[in-house]
Amino acid sequence: MAKQKKAPRPKAITPKGFRDYFGIEVTERAEMLHQIAGVYHRYGFEALESSAVETVDALGKFLPDVDRPNEGVFAWQEFDEKDNGDWMALRYDLTAPLARVYAQHRNELPNPYRRYAMGPVWRNEKPGPGRYRQFYQCDADTVGTASMAADAEICAMLSDTLEAVGIPRGDYLVRVNNRKVMNGVLEVMGLGEDQAAKDDVLRTIDKFDKVGENGVRKLLGKGRLDASGAYIDGVGLSDDQIEPVIAFLTSKADDAAKTFENLRGAVGGSAVGAEGIGELEQIGDLLAAGGYGSNRIEIDPSIVRGLGYYTGPVFEAELTFEIYDEKGRKRQFGSVSGGGRYDDLVKRFTGQAVPATGLSIGVDRLLAALREKGRMGGTSTGPVVVTVMDRDRMADYQSMVAELRNAGIRAEVYLGNPKNFGNQLKYADKRNSPVAVIEGGDEQDRGMVQIKDLILGAKIAETATHEEWKERPSQFEVPRSELVAKVREILEGQAD
Amino acid sequence: MAKQKKAPRPKAITPKGFRDYFGIEVTERAEMLHQIAGVYHRYGFEALESSAVETVDALGKFLPDVDRPNEGVFAWQEFDEKDNGDWMALRYDLTAPLARVYAQHRNELPNPYRRYAMGPVWRNEKPGPGRYRQFYQCDADTVGTASMAADAEICAMLSDTLEAVGIPRGDYLVRVNNRKVMNGVLEVMGLGEDQAAKDDVLRTIDKFDKVGENGVRKLLGKGRLDASGAYIDGVGLSDDQIEPVIAFLTSKADDAAKTFENLRGAVGGSAVGAEGIGELEQIGDLLAAGGYGSNRIEIDPSIVRGLGYYTGPVFEAELTFEIYDEKGRKRQFGSVSGGGRYDDLVKRFTGQAVPATGLSIGVDRLLAALREKGRMGGTSTGPVVVTVMDRDRMADYQSMVAELRNAGIRAEVYLGNPKNFGNQLKYADKRNSPVAVIEGGDEQDRGMVQIKDLILGAKIAETATHEEWKERPSQFEVPRSELVAKVREILEGQAD
Repeated sequence: MAKQKKAPRPKAITPKGFRDYFGIEVTERAEMLHQIAGVYHRYGFEALESSAVETVDALGKFLPDVDRPNEGVFAWQEFDEKDNGDWMALRYDLTAPLARVYAQHRNELPNPYRRYAMGPVWRNEKPGPGRYRQFYQCDADTVGTASMAADAEICAMLSDTLEAVGIPRGDYLVRVNNRKVMNGVLEVMGLGEDQAAKDDVLRTIDKFDKVGENGVRKLLGKGRLDASGAYIDGVGLSDDQIEPVIAFLTSKADDAAKTFENLRGAVGGSAVGAEGIGELEQIGDLLAAGGYGSNRIEIDPSIVRGLGYYTGPVFEAELTFEIYDEKGRKRQFGSVSGGGRYDDLVKRFTGQAVPATGLSIGVDRLLAALREKGRMGGTSTGPVVVTVMDRDRMADYQSMVAELRNAGIRAEVYLGNPKNFGNQLKYADKRNSPVAVIEGGDEQDRGMVQIKDLILGAKIAETATHEEWKERPSQFEVPRSELVAKVREILEGQAD
Repeated sequence: MAKQKKAPRPKAITPKGFRDYFGIEVTERAEMLHQIAGVYHRYGFEALESSAVETVDALGKFLPDVDRPNEGVFAWQEFDEKDNGDWMALRYDLTAPLARVYAQHRNELPNPYRRYAMGPVWRNEKPGPGRYRQFYQCDADTVGTASMAADAEICAMLSDTLEAVGIPRGDYLVRVNNRKVMNGVLEVMGLGEDQAAKDDVLRTIDKFDKVGENGVRKLLGKGRLDASGAYIDGVGLSDDQIEPVIAFLTSKADDAAKTFENLRGAVGGSAVGAEGIGELEQIGDLLAAGGYGSNRIEIDPSIVRGLGYYTGPVFEAELTFEIYDEKGRKRQFGSVSGGGRYDDLVKRFTGQAVPATGLSIGVDRLLAALREKGRMGGTSTGPVVVTVMDRDRMADYQSMVAELRNAGIRAEVYLGNPKNFGNQLKYADKRNSPVAVIEGGDEQDRGMVQIKDLILGAKIAETATHEEWKERPSQFEVPRSELVAKVREILEGQAD
């Protein structure tokens, strides 16, 4: 008889493109989301938490990204004896579920409906370094109003949010543009119904950040040599056609009135272009009335990200301070949030166009920025560790730790094998403990405990002279009854 | 040419068994999880957030529930050109991912490792009324120690947690039992290696809550008539075999010492039974040292839930106050949390048994309990609504709302069509607004605003006499410069 083969052990790994978050990574994100929710709430937005799973039908199968139509969602078919079960999928963003929720509940929801949502989304994409298939989004949208006051409010809220989480004024800028102005430009270019040419123009405009005015000029015309020496074919437009695009992209002036004048030049007699400029003017007036000056929010026609996706105003929040990239070069931190107006939100479901506008914050990028600014990501302080000198006296240690916790102090008793005391101190070190409590039989007989300041101890061990070491002891013996008071005193000293 | 058929509109519905959460449902849960995390943190537990998706391999395909081995997970195969992609699945609990994380990162994690995790889990089960396929769990586990101090700590933490979220002492009880004592009972019953008989006994014990001592006696013996008149076959044990089970289930006495004496009687000469009793005694001593008396945590051998799954101590938190069920009958609220010791956590991955103990809180049940106690689930207060009397003066309204928000007051401007003023007040009503602000052209000319106390207004409309109505006006005209102060005054008055 053949020997039965044992099933191989499963591998302890996350699926490709997924990761775990530990300790402070989790709590800092939770804290930041809590602060953001506070601002959204103050603006009158209501929380919404839809389920992670939607029908594929409701979701629309694919990501709304023209460049990668085949990238998609994680989907599966509901079991059904006739193999006819519904297809379900993990949400890929928070906007598609909002559309479904709004269409489903529109009769009960207030109108307009301001809602915020925060949580993970999933993308069935090829993972890459630092690019995960599950990540957090944090959105706020106003559904059911075409008023520019909704767009202005979103911009003001974005500005308040960045300051609330710890990005100081001056270190960020919310920039506003409008797709309709771009449409006006396309109109005066005389491309008529040539959608392919229009798409080419939009794609080229999207490269403005990288290639600059001259680059765009060449790419719209005959083409250009790129950095690698390869020749990139141009769109083949005439100078007359190219000029309005350049005028649009470079229209930003020192004051808003002049910017609007430049834009009016770029869109010429286009009605939709004029409408777009009018919308930007309204937004500007509303923000000024709210006290949001150009040091926080500005009209900037060179912002082109999202122009393809949205239908009216678009916004982008950029952090303007410099960081060093992985190659040691200085660069601006860049975008942490984007949004805009999209008017077909629920049309797929109901046949009725419903205007909507909103923003999405890149939670992980914003966290990275806060760490960069030193506002977050300090090492977390571990618990006070009550060491175990005598395993039969666990009840005594348990009562110490209970006293500390009841006093609001983070504390734990060592639960590993207490035999080797060195291991207990190593554990306290790994836990980043600020204080260790030690009570051996000798101390117990005398009614005393030893309290060790581990932060000071580490500092002294690193740098102190012998004199300093004698003057500033890092270990104290106090009566057992003074345990909580002494630990608190040390913790307060460390916090200074 | 046939007319092209338009694709049918997708249905705006959640998949079967899933639901949306709105407003206060979301924020109250977030608040409760925040409070729980605070207690867990104070106890030295570290946050862990693993991804929602695991390999099916790592997860172990099915729920750890012997009664429903075919119920399972939502799973799909990763796309791969050779149709050979990995199978992935949504996690069905937070314990299986902990096992994977611990096996994967054990060399970097502190040992013992105390971790907490909170988040949604997904079950591919038939949905039923009030039974969803996505729900929240909130777990805390200590991995890597066999010490009963870990189990005692989990019980103390559970007690502190319930009080922290608003369940007063006296309204809950944490009950502790031990699987080993049960094993001791099975040993003295002389069932030997007859696993089927042992499973029958465990299943019968599980019915103790429902059928009581006499019911268990009959079910272990010849059988019994159930409520519907059907005859249920018994396990067919002798009275001698049944007696230790009954002694075990009814061993609880008024004081712990007497309970332990009864248990010793039930397990007779069984070594594992004695070991289990010893563990319970240790837990009792440690909790007493921490000040946790039997008004919070007690040893209770009649707790049988989970005895099949765990390997040592088991815990259960029950809320002891009475509620009315859907049929209007009084009953105890019941269990909101359970847990225990399980020693094979990572063995599947590494071949090494690692001891672990932990608890899981039923987040939705605990929320329901808090609502039942009136600790949560009041209606949420909506924002102050600044109405729009003249749509050309949106900037004025915007500046009012900005002032209110900057003062920390939740406020919004009405963004719908302002034509019909009645609709604006209806909207404010739907939003549960406490205050409406009104400024028409007439008020503006005089530099005044109207402020309407909507809560008082509603009260007066319901109950007041004409005299009271004159004495306590619910609408005030104040200078524009006093807008914020007057709104704050009204809000503070409403809070009293």
